[in-house]
Amino acid sequence: MIIVLRPDATKKQIDHIVFKVKKLGLKPWVSSGVERTIIGVIGEEDVLRSQPLEVFPGVEKVLSILKPYKLASRDFKKDDTIVDLGDDVKIGAKNLVVMAGPCSVENEKLLINIAKKVKSAGADILRGGAFKPRTSPYAFQGLGEKGLKYLAKAKKETGLKIVTELMDVRDIDMVSKYADIIQIGARNMQNFNLLKEVGKSKKPALLKRGMSSTVKEFLMSAEYILSEGNFNVILCERGIRTFEDATRFTFDINAIPLIKNLSHLPIIADPSHATGKWGLVGPCAKAAVAAGADGLMIEVHPNPEEALSDGEQSLWPENFAKLMDELEAVATAVGREI
Amino acid sequence: MIIVLRPDATKKQIDHIVFKVKKLGLKPWVSSGVERTIIGVIGEEDVLRSQPLEVFPGVEKVLSILKPYKLASRDFKKDDTIVDLGDDVKIGAKNLVVMAGPCSVENEKLLINIAKKVKSAGADILRGGAFKPRTSPYAFQGLGEKGLKYLAKAKKETGLKIVTELMDVRDIDMVSKYADIIQIGARNMQNFNLLKEVGKSKKPALLKRGMSSTVKEFLMSAEYILSEGNFNVILCERGIRTFEDATRFTFDINAIPLIKNLSHLPIIADPSHATGKWGLVGPCAKAAVAAGADGLMIEVHPNPEEALSDGEQSLWPENFAKLMDELEAVATAVGREI
Amino acid sequence: MIIVLRPDATKKQIDHIVFKVKKLGLKPWVSSGVERTIIGVIGEEDVLRSQPLEVFPGVEKVLSILKPYKLASRDFKKDDTIVDLGDDVKIGAKNLVVMAGPCSVENEKLLINIAKKVKSAGADILRGGAFKPRTSPYAFQGLGEKGLKYLAKAKKETGLKIVTELMDVRDIDMVSKYADIIQIGARNMQNFNLLKEVGKSKKPALLKRGMSSTVKEFLMSAEYILSEGNFNVILCERGIRTFEDATRFTFDINAIPLIKNLSHLPIIADPSHATGKWGLVGPCAKAAVAAGADGLMIEVHPNPEEALSDGEQSLWPENFAKLMDELEAVATAVGREI
Amino acid sequence: MIIVLRPDATKKQIDHIVFKVKKLGLKPWVSSGVERTIIGVIGEEDVLRSQPLEVFPGVEKVLSILKPYKLASRDFKKDDTIVDLGDDVKIGAKNLVVMAGPCSVENEKLLINIAKKVKSAGADILRGGAFKPRTSPYAFQGLGEKGLKYLAKAKKETGLKIVTELMDVRDIDMVSKYADIIQIGARNMQNFNLLKEVGKSKKPALLKRGMSSTVKEFLMSAEYILSEGNFNVILCERGIRTFEDATRFTFDINAIPLIKNLSHLPIIADPSHATGKWGLVGPCAKAAVAAGADGLMIEVHPNPEEALSDGEQSLWPENFAKLMDELEAVATAVGREI
Repeated sequence: MIIVLRPDATKKQIDHIVFKVKKLGLKPWVSSGVERTIIGVIGEEDVLRSQPLEVFPGVEKVLSILKPYKLASRDFKKDDTIVDLGDDVKIGAKNLVVMAGPCSVENEKLLINIAKKVKSAGADILRGGAFKPRTSPYAFQGLGEKGLKYLAKAKKETGLKIVTELMDVRDIDMVSKYADIIQIGARNMQNFNLLKEVGKSKKPALLKRGMSSTVKEFLMSAEYILSEGNFNVILCERGIRTFEDATRFTFDINAIPLIKNLSHLPIIADPSHATGKWGLVGPCAKAAVAAGADGLMIEVHPNPEEALSDGEQSLWPENFAKLMDELEAVATAVGREI
Repeated sequence: MIIVLRPDATKKQIDHIVFKVKKLGLKPWVSSGVERTIIGVIGEEDVLRSQPLEVFPGVEKVLSILKPYKLASRDFKKDDTIVDLGDDVKIGAKNLVVMAGPCSVENEKLLINIAKKVKSAGADILRGGAFKPRTSPYAFQGLGEKGLKYLAKAKKETGLKIVTELMDVRDIDMVSKYADIIQIGARNMQNFNLLKEVGKSKKPALLKRGMSSTVKEFLMSAEYILSEGNFNVILCERGIRTFEDATRFTFDINAIPLIKNLSHLPIIADPSHATGKWGLVGPCAKAAVAAGADGLMIEVHPNPEEALSDGEQSLWPENFAKLMDELEAVATAVGREI
Repeated sequence: MIIVLRPDATKKQIDHIVFKVKKLGLKPWVSSGVERTIIGVIGEEDVLRSQPLEVFPGVEKVLSILKPYKLASRDFKKDDTIVDLGDDVKIGAKNLVVMAGPCSVENEKLLINIAKKVKSAGADILRGGAFKPRTSPYAFQGLGEKGLKYLAKAKKETGLKIVTELMDVRDIDMVSKYADIIQIGARNMQNFNLLKEVGKSKKPALLKRGMSSTVKEFLMSAEYILSEGNFNVILCERGIRTFEDATRFTFDINAIPLIKNLSHLPIIADPSHATGKWGLVGPCAKAAVAAGADGLMIEVHPNPEEALSDGEQSLWPENFAKLMDELEAVATAVGREI
Repeated sequence: MIIVLRPDATKKQIDHIVFKVKKLGLKPWVSSGVERTIIGVIGEEDVLRSQPLEVFPGVEKVLSILKPYKLASRDFKKDDTIVDLGDDVKIGAKNLVVMAGPCSVENEKLLINIAKKVKSAGADILRGGAFKPRTSPYAFQGLGEKGLKYLAKAKKETGLKIVTELMDVRDIDMVSKYADIIQIGARNMQNFNLLKEVGKSKKPALLKRGMSSTVKEFLMSAEYILSEGNFNVILCERGIRTFEDATRFTFDINAIPLIKNLSHLPIIADPSHATGKWGLVGPCAKAAVAAGADGLMIEVHPNPEEALSDGEQSLWPENFAKLMDELEAVATAVGREI
C-alpha cells in the first residue's frame, strides 16, 4: 500500500502515520520527493485495508498494490478450475457447456417439452426459475417448490443437469435437493449471507454479476463463497447497467478475457439478459464464445408470446437449435468444442 | 399502453394482437398513421405488463403510460406521509429529522459516547450497524446481537430512537426487538423476500436506494413493503454509481424533489455515503436540505482514524455540532425547522 | 407522437393542446381511458419534436413513435451500404476490412516499417493520427501536416489506403488531400460543424461513437453527414464509458448487431480503444467479428514501449499477424472472409 | 509515479525499467516487498506520463501520485480566482452571479422582453444561444450573427452582460465582438482546438462540464485554456449522464464542493440542463447555492410553450423572479449574497 501525503504534510503528521503503521506490525518506508512525500508499506496489505488511512491528518490519498481477493485470484491458483457435475458435464474444460430453458418454470408439460427440445439441440443443463426476483410485487413470483419438482422430473426424463436460482437463505436445503447448480442472481450478488450459506453447502454455484458491479467486486463476491470452502464456483457475465437504453443491459464482453486473466474460475455468458432482445442473442452468444467464454446460458421458450417472464429475450426452440449449429463453427474457430 | 407496430406489419399480425388484447379483458383501439399503425390499450395496464408484447410478430416497441407503482404514488395518496416514532419524532413533517452515529457499532463505551454527543448537537435518532454488508469477506462484519444490545443501552441513556440495518430474513424478530426503524441497505434494495418480511412486520422501515437503481425501481421496492400493509416507509437517497471516481458515489440531488413530486413518502439523504469524503458531507447535507429533503443520515465517529468501517466519510463530533448549527439557517431559508 | 395527460388535466387544457397540434397542420385524436386521457398525433413527427410539449399545462409526458433519424435508417434504405475505396477495398461487403497502424504518426521510418508489416499480415488500410485529441495540453499533439505526408509516403510504398483523424474544420482541405477516409474521433462525434463539413466534402467518413453516446445519438450524428449528401459513412464502435474501471472503456458488443438492424451503414469495431489493454484486443476483435462487424481498427506499433501515445493498447506486429490468422477462422465461421 | 511489478517479474525486467527511468532524467528507487516489488519514481511525473509504462515486460500497473493538471490546481494558486467583468459584475466573489435568459435567441422583441424581466428580477448576465449544438440536423440551429446582434441590443437596453456559446473556431472573432463571456458547451468540452483559441483570446470563458467527463478531465480542459495564458475561466456543472432516465441528466452536486477544494477557479451550476424539468430547477438551484456554487445559469422564457429549444426546462419570468427571492434566503444562510 502506498500512502501519498499532501504537499503541506508536517513532520509530525508523517511520524504519526509511521507510528501507526508499525503498531500494526508492518514495515513503512518513507520517500521524500520534490513535490510529495510518500510512505510505502510492506507486509499484509489486508491489515491496512481496514484502516481509514485517508482520514489521517496529512494524507492525500491511498493507493492499493495488491488485489483484495485471494482465493479467486490466478496468483493463488494457476490452473483453470473445472467444475465437474458428473456424467461428463464439466464447466471450464475444452468443451463448452450450454444451459438453456425458460426464464421461469411455468408448468410441468411445458417444461418437459422445452427440456426435450434443448436437449436434442445439444444443451447439457436445463435452466428455469422456481423463485423469481421481480421488480414489481404484482408480477409472477415463481412456483416455488412445485417448480423445483417439475425441474426434477424434467431431469429424470432427459438426463439434463439442473441450474436454478436461490433467493432466500431459508430455502437452501430445499433448492439443494433438486439443483445440480445453485444460481445466485445478479440482484443477490452482494447478499453476503446468501453467499456464505452457499459457500458452506459445497454445491456448485453459478454466481451472476451484479448489474452495477465492477469485476473486482464480482471476484470479491466469489471470494465469499470460496472462503467458506466451496471452490465449485462458476462466474456468469450477464450485462451491466449503463446509460445506453436501446438494449436492456450492456453486455460487457471485455470482462470475459479479463476475468480469464485475473481468475482461475470458469466464466460463462448470458446473452439473453445481457441484451434483452431475442434478435441480438445469437450474435452476442457467438461473440462470447469467440472471446473465450466457457459456456452460455440462454433463455428458450416454446412460445415466447405466452411466457410469464422475459418473453422478449427468449428464443424459440428452432432458433436455439439453429444457433447451436452456428456456435459449433465459432467454437471450433477458437479451439473449443460444443 | 401503446403498441407501436413495424412499418411492415401485416393486417393478420394486427388482428392477432387485437385478439390477444381483447382476450385479456382490455379494450384496444387501432390508429393507422401515414408511417405507422399503433394500438392503444385502455384498462388495467398491469394485466398487459406481464405480457411480452414486444415478441409478438409485427411489434416494434411498447410504450407504458401509467406508472408501475400504485401505493407509493402521489396519485394514490395526495398528502405527505408522516412516519411517527412517538415522543414527537416524526419524519416527513415540517421539522427535519437527523439520524447520526457511527457506521458500525464497535463497542459499548464508544457508542454511548457518540450517542451523547450527537444528542446534544441536536440529532433525534442514533444510527449504527450491528450487521454490516462488506464487500470483502475478510472485513469486519459487525457485532451482531451484542451490537443491538449496545444500541438499546444507548437509547436508554439518551432517549434517542434507533435505526439499524437488517440483512437477513432470519434476523427480523431480533432486529425488531431493538430498532425503532429497520434499515434496508442499498445492496438489499432488491432483496425482495427481505422487503416482504419488513412489509409484514409493520415496523417503520428506512429503504436506501440501490446504487444502480432508477427512481422508478426505488419506488417499486417501496411498493413491495407497502403492498404487504406497512405504510411506514422512509426513503433514503445515498448516491448512485456513475463513471465519476473522484467521489465514492454521485449524490443524485435531482431525486429529492423528483420523488417529492412522484410519491407521498418522506425522503431523507445520506451525504456520508453519497460523497464518501468527510470534507464534502457538510456542503452536500446543506444541499439536500435546500432541495427539500425531510431529514439527514450522517456518520459521526469520535475518532475516525480508529473506525472499523467507513472512517473516511465520518465527521468528528465537533464538526457535526458545527454542521447542525449551519443546517439550521438553511432549513429556515426553505421554510423548515431542525 | 403520443401525448399522455395528467390524471387531473382539464377539458380546457386538452382543447388547448388539440388546437396547437392542428395549428401545426397535424391531426390529433383524443382517447379517454379510465385513468388517463392521451392524445395521439398523426403526421410528420419532426414538426412536433421541436415543440416543448411537456411544458403544456396538463401534460405528463410525451412518447415518440418514430425514429428521429431518417437517412441513416434501414427503413429508408433496405440494402447494406458498401463504401468503395477503389482497388477492391470495400467496407460493408462480405470481405472484412482491417485498418491497422500506430495511434500517432511519430516519424517516417517507423511509420513505413509498420505499414509494411501490417500490409504483409493482411491489413487493407493504414491508420495513424497526425492530429491527436489529448486530454492533457502537455501531451504529444501530433505532427500535423508532416504526419499526413508520411502517411502519403507509406501509402505510396505499400498500396494501403489511409484513414486519419480530422479535428478542426479549418484543416478539412489539407486532410482530404492525403486521406482515403476521414476519421471523426469519439470526442468530436457531436462537433456538428465538423460533421457538416465532412458531409459537404463527400470523402468517405469513419464516424467513431462518442464515449457516452447512445446508439440513437450515434445514428443522429451520422444523419448530419448524410443530410449534407455524403452517404459514404462508416460507423465505428470503440467502447463507452461506464462505472467499470478495470478496462479503459466498456466495449458495447450489443451495439454491433443492433446497429446492423437499425441502419444500412457498415459498422466496424476498434477493440484497441474499447479495451485499452493489448492483452484483451485479440479476444475482443474475435468477438466483434463473431457478432457481425464489417471490419476492425487495431493499433499496432513495432515497439509499444516507445509509442508516444496509447502504447498500452498497441499490439506488436507479430501479435497482430498471429491475430489476423486467428480471425480468418472466426470470419469463416460466421460466413465472412478476411 | 509508482510502478507495481507482477509477482513473477524478473531481475532483468526490473533492471530494464530502472534503466529507462534513469534515461528520462528521473530517479527510481526499488522496494522489494514479500509479495511484490515496486519502483517509485521521483521527479517530473509528466515526463513519465507520456510513457506507456504498462506495456513494459514485468509491469502490472502504474499508479499516479500527482494531479495531471497544474495551473488549474489549488496547489498552484491558493486564493480563489475572481473573474471581473467590470461594472461590478464579478464571478467567484461573495456575491453570487446569476445568468438567465432563453436557451436560444429567437427574435429581437422576445429577447429584449426576457432581458428586461430577468434584469428586474436580479440577474446580472443575459444568456442566449446564437449558435446551437443540436442532436438532430433537422432542429433549429440558431440565428448566427443576427442572434449576436440582438444580444448586443439587449445589453445596450438593460446593461446586462452577455454570455453566449462559441461552437466553431472560425467564429471566435465574431462571437468575441458581442460576448462578455464566451461559453464552451458540454459537447465541446474536449474540442481541444476550440479551447486553445479561447485560451489565446483572453476573453472570459465559461467552460461547461462534458456530460460524461470526470472532474479530472474537466479540470484538464480548463488547463488547456489556462495554459494559453487565459486565466479568466469559469467552470459550470450542468449534469452528467448516468443510467437514471427520469431526469435529463444527473446533477453532480458533489462536484461543486470537490472542485472548490481542488481548484481556485469559480464554479457555477446550471440546474436547467442538469435536471431537464422546470419543476426541479428551483430546488436544485437552491441546492447548488447551499453547496457553495458561485452562481447559477438558468433558462427563462416568457412562453416556454413556444420556445424553439429546451422549453421543458425553462422557467416563466414570474417563477424566476420568485426563485430569485427564495435564493436570497439560501445565499444568506451560507454566508453569501445575491
